[in-house]
Amino acid sequence: MAIVLDPAEIAKTYREAIREEIKTLGDPPLLLAGFLAADHGPSKTYAEYTAKACADVGVRFDLRHLKRLEAEDAIAEANVDPRIHGILVYYPLFGPEHDAYIRDRVDPSKDIEGLHSFWAHCLYQNRRFIDAERTKKAILPCTPLAILKLLEAAGAFGGTAGKPLAGKRATVFNRSEVVGRPLASMMANDGAEVVSFDLDGVQLFQPREGEPGPGNDRRSASAYGVSESTVDRATALRDADVVITGVPSRSFPLVTPDEIKPGAICLNFSTMKNFREDIVERASAYIPRVGPMTVTMALRNTLRLYRNAEGERPCS
Amino acid sequence: MAIVLDPAEIAKTYREAIREEIKTLGDPPLLLAGFLAADHGPSKTYAEYTAKACADVGVRFDLRHLKRLEAEDAIAEANVDPRIHGILVYYPLFGPEHDAYIRDRVDPSKDIEGLHSFWAHCLYQNRRFIDAERTKKAILPCTPLAILKLLEAAGAFGGTAGKPLAGKRATVFNRSEVVGRPLASMMANDGAEVVSFDLDGVQLFQPREGEPGPGNDRRSASAYGVSESTVDRATALRDADVVITGVPSRSFPLVTPDEIKPGAICLNFSTMKNFREDIVERASAYIPRVGPMTVTMALRNTLRLYRNAEGERPCS
Repeated sequence: MAIVLDPAEIAKTYREAIREEIKTLGDPPLLLAGFLAADHGPSKTYAEYTAKACADVGVRFDLRHLKRLEAEDAIAEANVDPRIHGILVYYPLFGPEHDAYIRDRVDPSKDIEGLHSFWAHCLYQNRRFIDAERTKKAILPCTPLAILKLLEAAGAFGGTAGKPLAGKRATVFNRSEVVGRPLASMMANDGAEVVSFDLDGVQLFQPREGEPGPGNDRRSASAYGVSESTVDRATALRDADVVITGVPSRSFPLVTPDEIKPGAICLNFSTMKNFREDIVERASAYIPRVGPMTVTMALRNTLRLYRNAEGERPCS
Repeated sequence: MAIVLDPAEIAKTYREAIREEIKTLGDPPLLLAGFLAADHGPSKTYAEYTAKACADVGVRFDLRHLKRLEAEDAIAEANVDPRIHGILVYYPLFGPEHDAYIRDRVDPSKDIEGLHSFWAHCLYQNRRFIDAERTKKAILPCTPLAILKLLEAAGAFGGTAGKPLAGKRATVFNRSEVVGRPLASMMANDGAEVVSFDLDGVQLFQPREGEPGPGNDRRSASAYGVSESTVDRATALRDADVVITGVPSRSFPLVTPDEIKPGAICLNFSTMKNFREDIVERASAYIPRVGPMTVTMALRNTLRLYRNAEGERPCS
């Protein structure tokens, strides 16, 4: 039987480290601004997670309820408000295209979720620092980052230090710009071969040979290649050491125990169920949700962006 | 019976002006790079339009057939190639989110289609120039711009010089980031009240009172407001002086003569039919497609971007 991992438990260690670092920053404490248009559902739940997590680590959180058509102006104000260190927008607000436009309205230096296309571009170009001196680290999108940390906790990292997922095969159902595609990219950077399913087709992310570059951290090894693939679900699931699902649809056929490799690590980040409950009978670990870890990674990103900005503050 | 307007005919006058201006630029002629991943369908048709239009006005056109996964690298190369003045990418390549990412990889100064979020942001902020000296004009997205020029040719512009659509009501079926939303915004800037339908709901774009600002052109009058609306299709069609459709779905119920106001101007920019053919019995003008005008506006944008860059060229 699989271990069922609770992301809230795993997040505790990370939060402790964040809490300790925040204590060293002095007054006034960091301030996050959250913008929420929905009055129920996953957005509201995630906003509640955020409030709890902020209280837990000592960050102030100002959650503003607004109409979705007010979000763009509210973001513009928060971008230039020197009291605000980080911005969270609770999506979806509109459709995927309009939301992509809104995501890019957040100043990247306050984008603690790492959703701005500036950060996506850094990731896809394998650019780990944003300054020539290599002191300011790029931000990774918080849900894919949370997923990698959870996979690590589930024992998926068996490779070398530079390529912790070397030799592993992963199958990911979802290639959205906010989770699935950056996730596949990060996993391939870490050495995994990733089969990526989406409505738009199947793609294969394959690590390229090479060593980490000088001064780079582990994810700055050589890039990966992407190609179109014709592999089917049955084959991809049978071969996968890691199966990740993020399909927000009731018509997705639940992944069943007989489809997966014995001992596979299974993780779902969709708000809908994507695995059949008896998946635990064949998996080695099952992670049914990611939420509390995502918000923890957003807090980690907050600290990173705060450190990046230190050189630019008049008093430092 | 309605006049049926052929966009290719209307484009001729614009092309003549473009051809004359291009003659004054000397050698080597302007060069556009096109990237096409599809081997059939609307993308290929639009690429063929582009080739003809370029030949017509004296612009070189280098069309490259590639795999969609090669597009990002090809764009990056074209961005830094000093021989290339403008870039056209034939969408769709992936899904809407990934395509939005690709659109933003094109250098705005070579984005003759005006699809980069930089240009969208200029439009939504009603920013008509990109420099403090007000010499470099912002680029408008070429399909909405083409639609406005076609509406003008169809006699829709009856307002004042600053607000040519003042007092008009328009209904638009489509609120995509590349056509419907910028179009509604431009029409509201021009004085129209626009009901915008999309899967995501109904929105009302309303012009605000105010005069054009000093030194601004006609579209730089006061901004517009957007609100959610509960108006239904029947009401919106009954009241509209201008009906614009862009629904790429066979399940969209075709707009019929009995639904529209007598004398309304009807325009379809979808590659699928959205009006029933007998719409001409009640409309004053019917414009069944936009394509040739779109590529003409992209050529117009090419000249604008060329003029914008003149101050930055070593030889000028």
